[in-house]
Amino acid sequence: MAKDSDRLSLYKELEKQLKYSRFLHTMGVTFTATSLAMRYGADTKKAELAGLLHDCAKYIPVDEMERICEEGKLEISSFERGNSALLHSKAGSVLARTKYGVTDKEVLDAIRYHTTGRPGMTLLDKIVFVADYMEPGREEAPDLAEVRPLAFQDLDQALLRILSDTLVYLNGTGKKIDPMTQRTWEFYEKMVRHD
Amino acid sequence: MAKDSDRLSLYKELEKQLKYSRFLHTMGVTFTATSLAMRYGADTKKAELAGLLHDCAKYIPVDEMERICEEGKLEISSFERGNSALLHSKAGSVLARTKYGVTDKEVLDAIRYHTTGRPGMTLLDKIVFVADYMEPGREEAPDLAEVRPLAFQDLDQALLRILSDTLVYLNGTGKKIDPMTQRTWEFYEKMVRHD
Repeated sequence: MAKDSDRLSLYKELEKQLKYSRFLHTMGVTFTATSLAMRYGADTKKAELAGLLHDCAKYIPVDEMERICEEGKLEISSFERGNSALLHSKAGSVLARTKYGVTDKEVLDAIRYHTTGRPGMTLLDKIVFVADYMEPGREEAPDLAEVRPLAFQDLDQALLRILSDTLVYLNGTGKKIDPMTQRTWEFYEKMVRHD
Repeated sequence: MAKDSDRLSLYKELEKQLKYSRFLHTMGVTFTATSLAMRYGADTKKAELAGLLHDCAKYIPVDEMERICEEGKLEISSFERGNSALLHSKAGSVLARTKYGVTDKEVLDAIRYHTTGRPGMTLLDKIVFVADYMEPGREEAPDLAEVRPLAFQDLDQALLRILSDTLVYLNGTGKKIDPMTQRTWEFYEKMVRHD
């Protein structure tokens, strides 16, 4: 997003691709991510781009998501197959590259891992993951009043809190838990506890 | 913005009223303000509303801004008369009330003082003022690399830095300096120095 006209065009294109409520969520994630980037000394341009594109594949049919992942040489696990909640992140990272011309690996990874996280997340991964959970349009999670200030005090603590609460929530619903979310939680649980 | 459908309608209405570049600036201010609110324990709903409406009068002709201020019983100083850069904030606070139905005085004040500040600003005043200066779409000011992290560490220091740099910039251009900006700087210069 070097030139201002390119920046405007990219926002306009995203707005066209998304429902208005999803576009506003995207705005919330984008500028919560840039704020976290300002706070933690990350690149605000990369945070903006990753936030803006994180849900760019959200409204694509799931079989098309699978096709996009396969074309982009991203492996689909048996757990992910048919699961648009997980696949939209992976497919989004492919589209960010092929359709929106993003070449920066950090940005592409932050889009790819924004739903599950991963062990050893980059600062940008964490920023987009946390921003996605806590942007001001979100209201459903009961821990938001604690997570939001925490995210500006200690990003790893906020990340661990979100992962824990997500696992507890998923357990409560009886839904199967994505193995990557579980591994991410285990990684940060050890890291933060031994800090 | 209690109901979700009201929230969407308000964003849509604002988008209709503004140029697209100004709408994106408004998105930047809105969600930078909510992030600062999360960081400093302010009301994120009020920060969102004030950010969203801060420039709602931006594209109104200046004589119409004056009429709106007069109808809203807001006095116009001789310095402000004919000056849209200053009057859009005052007129915006009137429109936020009369056109957008905002009744919260804190929100209306944050809109009213977002350009000049004022001595004894509320937390919400400071949040909107600082967010307006540093949102990620801004690129012109040379102090942004320092102001942005500072805003998440010490809001008063960031405010003072912005006020100082604005006065230095205005002095450099030979433009007359708005007395309210000068008084706001004097207030915070004393306060922060004696802290």
